[in-house]
This record gives sequence, C-alpha cells and structure tokens, in this order.
Amino acid sequence: MVHATAAIVSQGDEIVLGQTLDTNSRALAGRLMDLGIVPVEHVSLPDDEAAIAACFARLSSSVDLILCTGGLGPTADDLTRAALARAMGRPLVEDARSLERIRAWFAGRGREMPEINRVQAMLPEGAAAIDNDHGTAPGIAARLGRADVFCLPGPPAELRPMVERFVAPVLRPPAGRTVRTGVVHTIGLGESDLASRLKNSPRGDLMERTRMPLVGTTASGGVVSARVRYEGPEPAERAGAIVAGLVAHVRDLAGAYAFASEGAPHESLPAAVIEALRRRGETLVVAESCTAGLLGSMIGDVPGASVVFLGGVITYHNRLKVELAGVEAGVLEGSGGARPPGAVSGACAEAMASGARARCGAGWALSVTGIAGPGGAVEGKPVGTVYIGIAGPTGVIAGGVSSRRFAMGGDRRAVREWSARSALGMLWLALVGEPAARMLRQVDEVG
Amino acid sequence: MVHATAAIVSQGDEIVLGQTLDTNSRALAGRLMDLGIVPVEHVSLPDDEAAIAACFARLSSSVDLILCTGGLGPTADDLTRAALARAMGRPLVEDARSLERIRAWFAGRGREMPEINRVQAMLPEGAAAIDNDHGTAPGIAARLGRADVFCLPGPPAELRPMVERFVAPVLRPPAGRTVRTGVVHTIGLGESDLASRLKNSPRGDLMERTRMPLVGTTASGGVVSARVRYEGPEPAERAGAIVAGLVAHVRDLAGAYAFASEGAPHESLPAAVIEALRRRGETLVVAESCTAGLLGSMIGDVPGASVVFLGGVITYHNRLKVELAGVEAGVLEGSGGARPPGAVSGACAEAMASGARARCGAGWALSVTGIAGPGGAVEGKPVGTVYIGIAGPTGVIAGGVSSRRFAMGGDRRAVREWSARSALGMLWLALVGEPAARMLRQVDEVG
Repeated sequence: MVHATAAIVSQGDEIVLGQTLDTNSRALAGRLMDLGIVPVEHVSLPDDEAAIAACFARLSSSVDLILCTGGLGPTADDLTRAALARAMGRPLVEDARSLERIRAWFAGRGREMPEINRVQAMLPEGAAAIDNDHGTAPGIAARLGRADVFCLPGPPAELRPMVERFVAPVLRPPAGRTVRTGVVHTIGLGESDLASRLKNSPRGDLMERTRMPLVGTTASGGVVSARVRYEGPEPAERAGAIVAGLVAHVRDLAGAYAFASEGAPHESLPAAVIEALRRRGETLVVAESCTAGLLGSMIGDVPGASVVFLGGVITYHNRLKVELAGVEAGVLEGSGGARPPGAVSGACAEAMASGARARCGAGWALSVTGIAGPGGAVEGKPVGTVYIGIAGPTGVIAGGVSSRRFAMGGDRRAVREWSARSALGMLWLALVGEPAARMLRQVDEVG
Repeated sequence: MVHATAAIVSQGDEIVLGQTLDTNSRALAGRLMDLGIVPVEHVSLPDDEAAIAACFARLSSSVDLILCTGGLGPTADDLTRAALARAMGRPLVEDARSLERIRAWFAGRGREMPEINRVQAMLPEGAAAIDNDHGTAPGIAARLGRADVFCLPGPPAELRPMVERFVAPVLRPPAGRTVRTGVVHTIGLGESDLASRLKNSPRGDLMERTRMPLVGTTASGGVVSARVRYEGPEPAERAGAIVAGLVAHVRDLAGAYAFASEGAPHESLPAAVIEALRRRGETLVVAESCTAGLLGSMIGDVPGASVVFLGGVITYHNRLKVELAGVEAGVLEGSGGARPPGAVSGACAEAMASGARARCGAGWALSVTGIAGPGGAVEGKPVGTVYIGIAGPTGVIAGGVSSRRFAMGGDRRAVREWSARSALGMLWLALVGEPAARMLRQVDEVG
C-alpha cells in the first residue's frame, strides 16, 4: 500500500453554491505535500448522495488516497456515510463503540444524546471509525478500489487533530520517491526582482523548469516567496539537506529582504519582526491613520507579541493626530499662509511616529498615513498614496525618524494590507542593518 | 441552449498543492446562483494537459456550462488552450484579432510584445476569443459536448470584468425555473437560537427541507446568517417578491439581532454600525487591548468610515491603559492591599471605554480587554475570557458606560475576531434600542 497520488473531496451545498470558502482543501493539500504525497485533484460537491458516490467511484480508480471532508453531521443533508456505502456496495451498520462515544460526548455536557445523532455511529460495513475528540462526528476509514478513503468532519477544529492523530501516521508516501519542500519569504522585493536574482544565481538559472529542486515564486499582499521543491529518488535525509542547502542559497540571494525561511507567509513577517526586537530587548508602538489598527492587529496576532509590543494610537481623524500623536496642527492645517504638508505627507508620518514613540515610551514606532480609497484623492496624491514613518534609535535611523512615500495598487483593502506589511518591512530592514534599502512600491517624493 | 447546471474548473499547481487559496471558484459560484444557474461541481487541477483535457471531456457530458479559470498565461505551465483543443479534437490556430490586441497592450506601455506572449493568441479551431481589457490573456469561448465552455484568466481583476461584460450576458438560465436568493445577517444570536426562531415561526417550520423557499443557517466568526433560496417555476418578479417577503419575516423573527438583509457577512456588521451612527450624527472611538487594533481595522475597512470613526488607542501594555486611556492604576495594580480587578475585568473595560470616549471627544467608545491565548490564563479567567466595554450617551447606556464578560472559544485568532465582532454587536444592539439584549458567548460574572 503506497500513497503516491491523492484527491481531496469537500462536500456541502454552502461550498458549491459559493456561500462558504473552502479552506480545508488547501490545508489538507499542504499537509499531504509535507508528507510527500502529491494531490492531483480537488473536487467540491453538493449534498447529493448519487453525485458523491459517483465521485468516490471515479477517483478510486485513479488515485491511491481520497481525503474527504464534510457531510458527517446528523441531519438529512449529511450524506457522506450513505454515499461511501453506496460506492462500496455495502450496507450501513451501526458501530457500537462510536455510538458509545457519541453518548459520552453528550453525557459529558450534561445532556442525553438526541436520537438524531445516532446516525453518526453508522458506518459502511467493513469500514473503521476514526475517533473525534472535538465533536460528535466520527470519521470513516475504508478501502475502495485502489484507494484508501478517509472521511472526516468539516469543522477545522475537529478535522485538524484527527488528521494529525489518526490519518497522517498511516499514510505511506512512495518509498522510491521523496518530496521535500522549503520556502524563503521576502518583503520589499518585487516578484520579478526576486525572480531575476534567482535566474542570475552563480549556480545558474534556479527557476529553470528542468532543474531539481524546482524553484518557483509566489506573491501575496507584499510578501514574495521562493518555494523550493525536491521530488526524486534521494533518501529523505539527503533530500532534506539538498533543499536546506538551496533554501540557504536563495536566502543569500534575497539578502536583507528575506525575513523567514519557513512558516505561513502572512503570519511570519510580524513574527520575524517581534523576534528581532525581542533579541534586542526593544519595544514597539504604532500610530495608524488609514490602516486604522490593522498594523497593530497584525502584530498582536502573534502569540507572545506582548514581550515587545506596547500598543499605540489610531489617529483616523486629524484632530486625533494632534491630540493623541502630538502632530503639530500646522502640519495639517497650514500656518502663516504657507501650504501645509497635510495629513498625507512625509512630515505627518514622521510626526506621528516620533510622537507615538515619545508618548508611549517605546524604542521604535511605525506610522502609516495615506489614501486607501475609493474616495479621498487630492491633487498630486492619488488613491494608494501612502506615507510610512519609522522612529527609532538614532544609531540606526539617522535623526531618529524617517519616512517614505509609496504608491500602493489595488482596492481599499489591498492598499491597507500592503501599507501595514510595508511598515513591518521597513522595520525589518532597519533591524537587520539595511534601513535605506529600497522597497517595492516605494516612490520618490514629487517636487 | 439552456444552462441549467454548471461546473467550475480552476487550474494551477499552486492551488492543487495547497499554496494558494481558490477564491475564484467561490465567487463564480455565487455569481452563477445570482443568475439562476446551479453549480453542481468545482474541480481544481494541476498544470497537467491530459488531466485538464480529461476533466473537460467528463464534465461536458454531464453539465450545460463549464467555467474555467487559470492556465492562460504565456509560459510552459499554462495549458488550458492546449487541453481544450485536445478535448475538442481540434488544432490550435492563431487568432489575428487577439494577437493585435496583445501587441497593442504592450505598445500602450511603451514595449514590444515579447515573442513568448504570441501563444496567448492561439485558440482551438472553432472557438472564439473573449476580450480582456485588463491583461494580455484573452479568454476562450467554445462548445464541447453538451456544454458551453468559457475559459478565463485567473487574476480576479481580469476575470471579474470579463465575466460581467462577456459571459454573464450570454448565459441562459432555464426559462421554466427561477432562482432567487436572500439573506438576513445577525450578530449576538447562536445558530441554534436563530434556527429555533425559524422553526417556531407563526408560518410553520421555515427550515423544513421540503418548503420552498428553502431557509438554511450558516455561522461564521460570530455572525449567524439565514439564507433564503427560491428555486421554482414562478416568474422572476414574483419569485423576487416571495423571497423579499420571507426575508422580511425572518428579519422580524431575529429582532434587534438582525443587522443586515444583504451583503457579505463579515463586512456588513461594521458597515451597518457606521450607517446607524451616521444617521444619528454620532462618532465612535475604540480602546483595544487583546484585539490590538483589529476592531478599529474592521471599522476602517468600510469605505467612508471617517464620517463617524475618529480613531482610538491600542493599550496592549498595562502602562498604556493608564497613560493613553486613563485607566486608574489601582484597577490594574491594586491599592491599599485590596485585590485589584486587573487588566482583564469589567472595571478595566469600562475605564478604557470611558477614558477613550472622553479623551477623544467621541459620542461612543468600545473597549476590548481579554486573554486571547495561548498563554496568559489566570485563576478564574481561562483563555477566551474577554470583557467588552461600551461608553455612550447616558440616555442609551445607563450611567454612560457598561461592560460584559464573554467566554470566547477557539484559538487566538478566533478569540480576537469574535471579540471585535461582539463589540460591534453590542454597539449595534445599543443603537437599535436594545442595549441589554443578551449576546452569544456572554457569561455572567463569577462571584
């Protein structure tokens, strides 16, 4: 029994009709890749027993492994059990142990099991139950055609632990082929910048499609990642070393822009910044206008952020830029007849950062002020114009504060997300000793 | 030519291997439902010409319409054109008009068309090109088996306008069957609370599966929605009126907890709150501890939020609760030997809200303080313990400020998102005159 190829099936009207985004399939695919098993198809189906059974039958003749999520609840639209039994040509039978566990689940909550939940203990004859410690629905393990089939409940909080505890340990990636992956995340570089560094490596064009490991790039919300994948006959340890060596080389090519060599792209930039600050024993605050708390929220998303993150101010309205961040009114409103820099300016971003740093007693401050759109554009400052300020130790930031102008693309959400990540990118470059490194979407101040 | 059923195919290794989340399929499915065409399957496939061709062939014998995204780029891993031609049994031929448009696209940017892009003008013989005004890849319209096939580029910014301009207008939902959908979004109610209100409607059990329109509930991050779907022989106008009437009835059943009858669930709660404040001419600020800016960011996500949203303070560290929000140190640190309420307490949440409201000169303030986890639990306050404070006009909030304790479930991210949405829910209930209505996950203060 070897699992060389896999299909992922997700079920539910809410997915197929477009009400719910299918995040389980992506997570399962990533997990399979980690294990060295290649997903070759994802299918989403409605609550339709015949369609699900037909899909099981079709896939079981072409892949070694089927992972299915959803449709294991107690109601009439939960049809996985029946569909699998139909595909197997076997009846549904009650599993005494599962029934006992479901009863115990309710008993542990001071309730009697509703009769409707009894159906969750039904399994196709010959199949095995997979224990669910976080809900009432047991999973199902069965053999169908050439495939091993694992049916699991849809809620991620139930699905994930079942995969780790019961499914992953019994999967068998092909012995003669090892898959190992690695990744380098960067901030501040464009995808084409990174690609050209990879192309012009002293080791040759790393992105050439016949090379092994294969290197590809992906971009998401300002973070550009190089993904390294080895798939071949080398034993696991050697394959791991090959990937690790190439990851290190790619990281060198990316230079200071590389902030992580593993982890999820969107989560690891704040985590990398927090870790760098923690090592230096320094603290951080934020002063946010157009991002309105998004930058602080990204930082607070990281467990343990409180070691370095103190908080900050959200100065959406100009009055609060003055009252909370200490921006001089003249910057915003003009004084002595001169045209003021305005709320969207380098002067304002620098005043916000300096003010927040001083008022909150922090080592570092990041500020963001700009035009997220769709309205708000002014002459010379179109939607997407954003100024990011950074205040920090004068030994690192000359004069203690600086700012940059950016031209972010995309809609309101994209402008805000790029702004928050770019602010973290500026801090990252400062923390690794490259405070002047130019960033993607950075533009020169217009006269 | 009638399109009663549809399949959606998305292509790309990055999707099947789990690197990228497939959001196009969900968006296309929702759009088809709006038009009255029911998606019956989504499939994601790798960059594999034979697999894509086989999938086209299979689907073209079972559905009336295939919408395919991705694989239309200029590089070797873009295989949709070739796969469709293979499934059709026709050669690829160059489309002169498409080639001209691609050349013009580059010329408009001061560049000559790279030779590699020439392949994007190739179409299966007998297929038609679909103009792309936002990129180089034309789409493809073709007939295969019983299905009309539309292949479109993957980037949403190219895909969306092509669907609206060229695909949607030529789709033909079955004349004898109309589909109309409606939705009611609620905050503060549990899914089972809402379901039981629907079940006990004076009109009978609205969720009964044989009824038409069919009513179902979905829950996501604290927002519980009732979805109404009519599918039947009524003409469009009458079907629309039936759905609208039922939506109004469901909204009545949900009472003050209903905040919207349309729109995306996560975006419309802050939008509903902003609109309610705008009508009253009142302003809002936030004071956030464990959410660290997430609440402010959700509010700032709404275009035009600046009409009512002023900003606020992020008081992650206790020192900033005192310095920025004016919380008395005694609340946090104890005074005179008494055990203080602490940072995670109703007293602190109320002080944060009152302080932020006064310091920022706002009509309303929301505050959040709690334990998002995974660490930080203290005796009597497990992970997920969150206090939300609200300060507002004394005519609405007795004494001008109040707070509630919540027991949020899930991981750090879930606790923070639920907290921010629950805060908006508390404000919503206050704005509609039900400031005391009990909310989901609200718990009584322990002695």
